[in-house]
Amino acid sequence: MGNSFGTLFRISTWGESHGGGIGVVIDGCPPRLLLSEEDIQSELDRRRPGQSEITTPRKESDKATIVSGVYEGLTLGTPIAIYVPNGDHRPEAYKEMKDKFRPSHADFTYQTKFGIRNHEGGGRSSARETIGRVAAGAIAQKILKQANNIEVRAFIRRIHTIEAPEIKEFPSLEAVEASPVRCPHPETAEAMVNFIKKMRSKGDSVGGVIECRVKNLPVGLGVPVFDRLEADLAKAMLSLPATKGFEVGSGFAGTELIGSEHNDVFIEKDGHVGTATNRSGGVQGGISNGEELVFRVAFKPTATILQNQATVDSDGQETELMGRGRHDPCVLPRAVPIVESMAALVLVDHWMRHKAQCESFNF
Amino acid sequence: MGNSFGTLFRISTWGESHGGGIGVVIDGCPPRLLLSEEDIQSELDRRRPGQSEITTPRKESDKATIVSGVYEGLTLGTPIAIYVPNGDHRPEAYKEMKDKFRPSHADFTYQTKFGIRNHEGGGRSSARETIGRVAAGAIAQKILKQANNIEVRAFIRRIHTIEAPEIKEFPSLEAVEASPVRCPHPETAEAMVNFIKKMRSKGDSVGGVIECRVKNLPVGLGVPVFDRLEADLAKAMLSLPATKGFEVGSGFAGTELIGSEHNDVFIEKDGHVGTATNRSGGVQGGISNGEELVFRVAFKPTATILQNQATVDSDGQETELMGRGRHDPCVLPRAVPIVESMAALVLVDHWMRHKAQCESFNF
Amino acid sequence: MGNSFGTLFRISTWGESHGGGIGVVIDGCPPRLLLSEEDIQSELDRRRPGQSEITTPRKESDKATIVSGVYEGLTLGTPIAIYVPNGDHRPEAYKEMKDKFRPSHADFTYQTKFGIRNHEGGGRSSARETIGRVAAGAIAQKILKQANNIEVRAFIRRIHTIEAPEIKEFPSLEAVEASPVRCPHPETAEAMVNFIKKMRSKGDSVGGVIECRVKNLPVGLGVPVFDRLEADLAKAMLSLPATKGFEVGSGFAGTELIGSEHNDVFIEKDGHVGTATNRSGGVQGGISNGEELVFRVAFKPTATILQNQATVDSDGQETELMGRGRHDPCVLPRAVPIVESMAALVLVDHWMRHKAQCESFNF
Amino acid sequence: MGNSFGTLFRISTWGESHGGGIGVVIDGCPPRLLLSEEDIQSELDRRRPGQSEITTPRKESDKATIVSGVYEGLTLGTPIAIYVPNGDHRPEAYKEMKDKFRPSHADFTYQTKFGIRNHEGGGRSSARETIGRVAAGAIAQKILKQANNIEVRAFIRRIHTIEAPEIKEFPSLEAVEASPVRCPHPETAEAMVNFIKKMRSKGDSVGGVIECRVKNLPVGLGVPVFDRLEADLAKAMLSLPATKGFEVGSGFAGTELIGSEHNDVFIEKDGHVGTATNRSGGVQGGISNGEELVFRVAFKPTATILQNQATVDSDGQETELMGRGRHDPCVLPRAVPIVESMAALVLVDHWMRHKAQCESFNF
Repeated sequence: MGNSFGTLFRISTWGESHGGGIGVVIDGCPPRLLLSEEDIQSELDRRRPGQSEITTPRKESDKATIVSGVYEGLTLGTPIAIYVPNGDHRPEAYKEMKDKFRPSHADFTYQTKFGIRNHEGGGRSSARETIGRVAAGAIAQKILKQANNIEVRAFIRRIHTIEAPEIKEFPSLEAVEASPVRCPHPETAEAMVNFIKKMRSKGDSVGGVIECRVKNLPVGLGVPVFDRLEADLAKAMLSLPATKGFEVGSGFAGTELIGSEHNDVFIEKDGHVGTATNRSGGVQGGISNGEELVFRVAFKPTATILQNQATVDSDGQETELMGRGRHDPCVLPRAVPIVESMAALVLVDHWMRHKAQCESFNF
Repeated sequence: MGNSFGTLFRISTWGESHGGGIGVVIDGCPPRLLLSEEDIQSELDRRRPGQSEITTPRKESDKATIVSGVYEGLTLGTPIAIYVPNGDHRPEAYKEMKDKFRPSHADFTYQTKFGIRNHEGGGRSSARETIGRVAAGAIAQKILKQANNIEVRAFIRRIHTIEAPEIKEFPSLEAVEASPVRCPHPETAEAMVNFIKKMRSKGDSVGGVIECRVKNLPVGLGVPVFDRLEADLAKAMLSLPATKGFEVGSGFAGTELIGSEHNDVFIEKDGHVGTATNRSGGVQGGISNGEELVFRVAFKPTATILQNQATVDSDGQETELMGRGRHDPCVLPRAVPIVESMAALVLVDHWMRHKAQCESFNF
Repeated sequence: MGNSFGTLFRISTWGESHGGGIGVVIDGCPPRLLLSEEDIQSELDRRRPGQSEITTPRKESDKATIVSGVYEGLTLGTPIAIYVPNGDHRPEAYKEMKDKFRPSHADFTYQTKFGIRNHEGGGRSSARETIGRVAAGAIAQKILKQANNIEVRAFIRRIHTIEAPEIKEFPSLEAVEASPVRCPHPETAEAMVNFIKKMRSKGDSVGGVIECRVKNLPVGLGVPVFDRLEADLAKAMLSLPATKGFEVGSGFAGTELIGSEHNDVFIEKDGHVGTATNRSGGVQGGISNGEELVFRVAFKPTATILQNQATVDSDGQETELMGRGRHDPCVLPRAVPIVESMAALVLVDHWMRHKAQCESFNF
Repeated sequence: MGNSFGTLFRISTWGESHGGGIGVVIDGCPPRLLLSEEDIQSELDRRRPGQSEITTPRKESDKATIVSGVYEGLTLGTPIAIYVPNGDHRPEAYKEMKDKFRPSHADFTYQTKFGIRNHEGGGRSSARETIGRVAAGAIAQKILKQANNIEVRAFIRRIHTIEAPEIKEFPSLEAVEASPVRCPHPETAEAMVNFIKKMRSKGDSVGGVIECRVKNLPVGLGVPVFDRLEADLAKAMLSLPATKGFEVGSGFAGTELIGSEHNDVFIEKDGHVGTATNRSGGVQGGISNGEELVFRVAFKPTATILQNQATVDSDGQETELMGRGRHDPCVLPRAVPIVESMAALVLVDHWMRHKAQCESFNF
């Protein structure tokens, strides 16, 4: 409880930042899917530290091993366990964190909730945990691709106040990967990179907004009233470290429109029912409507900054803590594949749920 | 699956807008809680149509009956079933909706997903379903109050572009209920009411943002990594009809700050550890930190407008649909108790989960 | 939690023996199934008190109303709520039970666990709760019938030491219903009826064994390693009041065979793979193998006997309690439709789970 | 889904007989429990092959590594991952099994359900999977011991028709471990060992019955109506390979008593309420009553026998298969710690559930 996600395609992640390793167990994966470690590694490499000049220089190779659930290159339908050993262990780097709570981190809450914590690298609260999500998400994305050529594409829409213009076309993976900041609008991407570098040079950090789009979704995914598609997506996104908000379709800005401006009228579109606009973001009544799924996620500026900050220690005494170490000045570039992974996990799960309820029988 | 919410304090809602009635079953309620139908009715009355000049004039008394789980005024620990019969049935009002899909409603997606739908009043997709949530939420709020004097207070922060200034003090219930629009800032409330009336007179509708605050929460609620407190709150809120977004603490606006501006430094506060600012919104690492919980929810303008709109019919032919009937020009005033209810349900559930894992044993 | 059963076809029952009523909510039912109250009532009538000379003479009409989830005779895919009001309330009959714990009943454990109980008629621990199961089970049986002409047939195999010979042919519903004791072997049935009457005349009670068989099951239902088909059936059966044991196929007796006697060799059977014998009871490795599913359930003698028994009261003082009222001297005849219902619920759930994992995609 | 067990103390097992390894993730473990690999290894050694003259001579060291969730010897409250690498791989030993279905094994059903299987050593259907259960069960037993000095003790009650007399006293671990057959009655144990050896020399196999007893349980564990304590125990036991039946307290034999013989009258016992007899087996109304918990599990004779058996191949053609390899002629001695583990897992989970619902608040 708490470390598992999904109903039918269910993942359970485990592992702390420092210790034996990080892993994930995927239960419920359909059998007979062609799956290799390369399928997983390619996504992990997009998440990995040290991949570009604007991410942390930490060296973590993050090599994934499939330990079970695959036989002669095909999934068995039994649990797939994936294991990524930890490395690059420098416990001395965390000594000061043992007794001092880092501002806007999970140190204080973990310590108080559990009465104990592994303070090294944040322990379980480290974003390193998302390795398991990305590994599982790679499988989910492969399933979606094969099922209906469904593509899940996230990219950075805004860094601090530097915002890309609305991206009309579904962006290609190449366009997203063209810049280390994973914004498919080149001019904006360049400005973002420069701003991130500037903030890093000051030992400071920045946040922003990731947009995620999904195309070729069928109509019908999502289970009202509680497991609406956007509700499960919202949970998935807010379960990521550093996230502060989620919006679907017109989102918060849409609340500044009046009804007659906001409604998506239905039209005939290539022989099927579609909508003229997409303020719904591809979901109506909690169920996908066949239009592009569009949502955005807010990420706060990285909590670790290389500056001196006031804080208290484990005795409740006020003190100071100097941030040190090798950290991302901005988590968003590496969060792009994580957002895609979580979205894909939600979609595969809902695909299976939809088939189960609405297509198991011929009534 | 899909119509239940919560892990240990778990609710299951049922019922369509038209038909026998609406209800909820609450499983896992602690025993020996003093509970009466009045406790529930008082919250339902805040959600009920026809309560003010800016809500729908539909007459729905929404009288709740506790059918099980309470004995001699005390909860038994067995499932509490609450039943609210439907009334005011006018099937003829919905004739046109049988074959035409209302824009930005769930008609098309329900019909396509299930191959059938009850088109009268939206059937299961009607906001009438939230009656069950409010009934259960009334119980959850009573538990929180008794457990630690925890108060959950939602209010309207913004209607269209009319925004109340930041509310510094935790608003009293009286301040919220003073205006039919449930905004505790009187001048803003008046402007909001006027704007809603103006839009209604044009047959149009408006949306906005509800803010919710919770005080007196203990440290420790929330279960990383997936069942973070904000993740479960996000799911709860996005499971509500007409919601388009969720943000906690600094939210989307916080992404425009840099790390040194955004971090909440820890301070000693009345003998315990607190934070100087509250951009975290009361949650760090997915766990409540003892500060006020603060989140906001975006609601789109009501999809039903009393205007002629283009749409398609069930044969996929383009046509027009004239909105009619008695609808809320703005759902937010009636959504205030619904947001409070969902928040309370999440909090009671996490309270019980925290006790179970961290306080069952004395290690 | 605790009052729900199933994963995808999920039921939640509520209600105490005395109070407003008894009900069930079925979430996940496939849409477009033809369903009427008569479908449900016919099964409830088989469970109802007062149906024959060997059951309790209590008059409970147990009329079921479908309150939601069905529209114009077809299921909507939204939750089906079924409600059966309580009647025949005689609180004075239970006065003595308020302070004295009935031997081998749930009075003491409920009181101690919850710190409160509704002592009238056993409250939530009453077998009256199974009304909701039978109502839901009637729907599940209808689905199975339509899906693959699957039939679930339970009958009494043994009362006390009076045992029917092995029933080779799959018994017809008519053969089972021919006797009030629901044993399809007429001579044994007569002996059973006589024995039950004799015991009742002494104010005593009897137990026995129900056998359940299912034909036309496809291969593939059941999800190892924990949700094996027999594991979920075992849970379903042991969740019924008065049950003390479960066995599948050769069961306990099979442990007295050696491996070479016990194994079911595979043979070619009408063009598909079958087994020459069926000691596996239709399940191998937790998955249905296409043979008849066969299991048995042990029911203890009714705890309520019309005799004076030693007990203690709520102050822990030793006292005596005289059983009174109108009770079944033997619960098995009325338990037959309950066993069938629980089996059908497990099977529909696993059918949907199997389709979801193994047939959602074409890998 | 299907490879996880438990609600609050939840385990997920993974791994096939051959392949990378076998493991388990435990989510929800209370924090601050002193835990070492030795705690786990000592139980795994009781389950391990090659431990005595009556088990398989296969050499599997089954060394467990705790990969996460423990820090400086204490549990963190985050997921505990335990990993046991596979070894002693002899794929050639399984060649014939690739195309022929072993009688009374899971080969046919896995192949048909999933359309694929890892035939080596039974893949996921191998009893090797239970390593993860025993590792998790060792933790659960440690928790129970610390919580209330609760002891879970299983032992062999019957092999084939050789049955130990009723064991009146709660047997000590030493008494159980004194014989390789884990029957605490020395004369019976000797006869059992001799019989097993005799059957093995013929290439045949035997089954039997394991009894499990738990002492020092508090009153109140178990959640009616579906998650009764005995229902969850039944599911736990029937989820084990080779099990065919479960009974609690008087079980199947109790159905041959009449009510006045069977009822457990309440008495005052050392200052608390107890029962004079224990035909209830420690559970009443689905809730533990403070008496010793007593249940029994039927295990069929090992399906693998070293004899020639008829079967069919993957093309549906009839053929023969000669059992070979190193197998247990009787699974029961090694199943004793597995039964204890599953019982302990159920009990810890219900302990936490009870605390959550009934002791989180002071009503």
